[in-house]
Amino acid sequence: CGQAHAQSSVTIFGVADIGYVHTSANGTAGSVSRSQLASDGNTSSRLGFRGTEDLRGGMKAGFWLEGALAIDQPGSLTLQRRSTVELSGSFGEVRLGRDYVPTFTNLTVAYHPFGTNGVGNAGQLFYPVAAGGTTSSTHVRSNNGINYFSPNVAGYQANVMYAFGEHLSNEGATKQNDTYVGGRVSYANGPLNLSAATGKTKFATGDYTQSNFAANYQLGAAKLMYLWGENKVGVTKTTSNLVGVQYKVSGTGEVRAAYTDLKAVGVANDATQMTVGYVHNLSKRTALYTNYSVVDNKGTGKQFVVGGGDKTTVAGGNTTGYEFGVRHSF
Amino acid sequence: CGQAHAQSSVTIFGVADIGYVHTSANGTAGSVSRSQLASDGNTSSRLGFRGTEDLRGGMKAGFWLEGALAIDQPGSLTLQRRSTVELSGSFGEVRLGRDYVPTFTNLTVAYHPFGTNGVGNAGQLFYPVAAGGTTSSTHVRSNNGINYFSPNVAGYQANVMYAFGEHLSNEGATKQNDTYVGGRVSYANGPLNLSAATGKTKFATGDYTQSNFAANYQLGAAKLMYLWGENKVGVTKTTSNLVGVQYKVSGTGEVRAAYTDLKAVGVANDATQMTVGYVHNLSKRTALYTNYSVVDNKGTGKQFVVGGGDKTTVAGGNTTGYEFGVRHSF
Amino acid sequence: CGQAHAQSSVTIFGVADIGYVHTSANGTAGSVSRSQLASDGNTSSRLGFRGTEDLRGGMKAGFWLEGALAIDQPGSLTLQRRSTVELSGSFGEVRLGRDYVPTFTNLTVAYHPFGTNGVGNAGQLFYPVAAGGTTSSTHVRSNNGINYFSPNVAGYQANVMYAFGEHLSNEGATKQNDTYVGGRVSYANGPLNLSAATGKTKFATGDYTQSNFAANYQLGAAKLMYLWGENKVGVTKTTSNLVGVQYKVSGTGEVRAAYTDLKAVGVANDATQMTVGYVHNLSKRTALYTNYSVVDNKGTGKQFVVGGGDKTTVAGGNTTGYEFGVRHSF
Repeated sequence: CGQAHAQSSVTIFGVADIGYVHTSANGTAGSVSRSQLASDGNTSSRLGFRGTEDLRGGMKAGFWLEGALAIDQPGSLTLQRRSTVELSGSFGEVRLGRDYVPTFTNLTVAYHPFGTNGVGNAGQLFYPVAAGGTTSSTHVRSNNGINYFSPNVAGYQANVMYAFGEHLSNEGATKQNDTYVGGRVSYANGPLNLSAATGKTKFATGDYTQSNFAANYQLGAAKLMYLWGENKVGVTKTTSNLVGVQYKVSGTGEVRAAYTDLKAVGVANDATQMTVGYVHNLSKRTALYTNYSVVDNKGTGKQFVVGGGDKTTVAGGNTTGYEFGVRHSF
Repeated sequence: CGQAHAQSSVTIFGVADIGYVHTSANGTAGSVSRSQLASDGNTSSRLGFRGTEDLRGGMKAGFWLEGALAIDQPGSLTLQRRSTVELSGSFGEVRLGRDYVPTFTNLTVAYHPFGTNGVGNAGQLFYPVAAGGTTSSTHVRSNNGINYFSPNVAGYQANVMYAFGEHLSNEGATKQNDTYVGGRVSYANGPLNLSAATGKTKFATGDYTQSNFAANYQLGAAKLMYLWGENKVGVTKTTSNLVGVQYKVSGTGEVRAAYTDLKAVGVANDATQMTVGYVHNLSKRTALYTNYSVVDNKGTGKQFVVGGGDKTTVAGGNTTGYEFGVRHSF
Repeated sequence: CGQAHAQSSVTIFGVADIGYVHTSANGTAGSVSRSQLASDGNTSSRLGFRGTEDLRGGMKAGFWLEGALAIDQPGSLTLQRRSTVELSGSFGEVRLGRDYVPTFTNLTVAYHPFGTNGVGNAGQLFYPVAAGGTTSSTHVRSNNGINYFSPNVAGYQANVMYAFGEHLSNEGATKQNDTYVGGRVSYANGPLNLSAATGKTKFATGDYTQSNFAANYQLGAAKLMYLWGENKVGVTKTTSNLVGVQYKVSGTGEVRAAYTDLKAVGVANDATQMTVGYVHNLSKRTALYTNYSVVDNKGTGKQFVVGGGDKTTVAGGNTTGYEFGVRHSF
């Protein structure tokens, strides 16, 4: 086995998160359920390799290669969580390659009580709904991106990203497909955090646009959280509002709760999601957790589900999920 | 390149095993053969990442990510040898994820002279024969498993595993498919090792059951080995008995020999396998090895072959293999 | 994250190279172009794991596992750049597994100003042209290989490789398909480097043969380079002659230029390629680079393109490419 000596340029890091998940959905003949061992109830499992090098004049070069893991039923190590070369200095940082799009940052656990993990996954109501025959592949990450992060100036920080669609110049109507442009501005001042972001991916069948705004405030042991998000594809639109809290009940325990209300126009139906959870830290690197979530489709809706669950087959049906798991970071 | 400094939490480890393999089989127009460079004649090639963390009260958390390698014709790094998060302490160890099923442990080199590698691969006569339209995917490992190992108490140690089939509750007859449950008990006392294991995977078309029992005794330089194994799929059954030896002829050399007799009921025909081999250790981490094996199909049988070989096309035909290789652990 | 302590047996290493690439080609309705973020303009991106162990008597054992990376649009980590177990000593080195074929070494940056990377990629005019229904998979690397490197004796060094086709002995006409044999001899004496190599892959539809010869001479800051290469598939043949230079203009900067003339017989048409480039080293591990290249198809040819570009749709058309990028080694 290999443990290495000094003068490293490579850091290996990762997360392994796995737990029991039970999901159920209203069905025409009663509730239908599924029991699973599943990954990522608290944090996305991953394995990565990264490093930095000091250059002249305070500049740094670096690389970051990170792939997702399915601890419960593993497959190939696919380096699609992040794959970048970075140059940074007093001007900020430029990353070239595959990375988060600016809007995704506002859906992580820093701005949504549960981030995009587990039964309360932010992705359930804050990701786009497929519409008009177009599916965006850039609402989380984009390939072929130039991603710039400004320095932090008096609490303000900015991020802009452009990603190439890479089509031939004579391809016609679809030649701009997959071209992405987006940006984000954030402000941090003591207990207050504000962040707004927007991004557009070009498609001949209708551009996809994602925008969101997050505000949170640390009030003693409680972080009060608000998040607004909107996804548009042509004339279809979903808009979500979340209120939530992350509350430290002890030196090792944190309660989390969130309520989201989604309004749909031209696609799917309205829905709400309510999630509560608890994280118990065994150490800085290891935690036990549990979450419970309900998604309630309105009207004749069947579209929305708890994270990892199956769709309801009943108009306006609910889906419910709960989970217990362990998250280990390394 | 990256060699790292102190305070590690990740160990990189693996095996690279490659050699020349010649296999032949009786054919209608004489013997048909194939020459190959092939992996894993002595030990399964692999690359892995693992680590542990000390928690309070003597507990530990850990992770283990390990994928198979084909040194001769490499492909994707697929982390399917093992992918688990572990919690351990005085209660024993719980592993969540993908891991060996309990019965497989009795087919490894600790209980079979050649383990499941090379031309004498235990898998040839101790794995299930596809029957009744059902193929088990859980005779070596299972996804979605909860795997518990007891502490060692006076030489006794137990292991039980449950794995979720993950089907919908209203799927009907197949809703239990892929659900696995199994266990193993072992006893070690000086030169004596005993181990028994059984496991069942549910299938609507007929459950698959694997059971085995191993006994070995260290008599001076020789480890005398006996292994019984049975695989059942509905009414079909294969039962195998092995006698074998691992004999240290010097500080660096070990001779290995095994004879297995397989009886088939309702599927395939009877067969025997005879294997001899030699391992020459160049160091603790590196060895040269050679193996020779013959599988003799009885009656009209054509089913069974030496590891890495091609099936005979002649009723009751033989297949033969020999190999020379090098195994390097890291 | 994992950084490890002493007594290592595993080194992690790699390259991350990414940049902007613009390619264009003559089309019937004017020039057609494509803008991309692409990997490998200067050096092939990779992630690898390797190690060596000292054995008795000056011998060493080792392993090398290396996969390609697409930094711009990452996929699975596939260990197909190199996957070998090695034994070395005073007799030289034997590598078993997947490795470069001997002829490929003469197409790398040591013998071609741009190696097989970027818009000026040596592969464009020095790789075989598919012909006769046969595509060689062994003009860069081969699976299933036994690769021997002699010690360096008075500047002379030899390399021979044999790779198994692994077909069944009664397969008929195609039973030798994919069997590879090749060799290379090089000579280094002060400023002078000479190298000649040839290799053949057997195919029932016509063997594929690749041969090349390289000479270069270090004249002050300039390395003057000459390369001849020939690819044959049955009666079809392409022959290329390159003259080039790598010229150190400063302690950190190097200008590169190459002109290649290709003659085709029985397949495609003649073509030329002209490339100029500049590499600016920010450190030993990190560089910025730019390249410009033009491929000019002769007669009615449309076959040849700059690295990463699209084919022209016009008989005898040109294709052009330029790129700016950053290469970081670790």
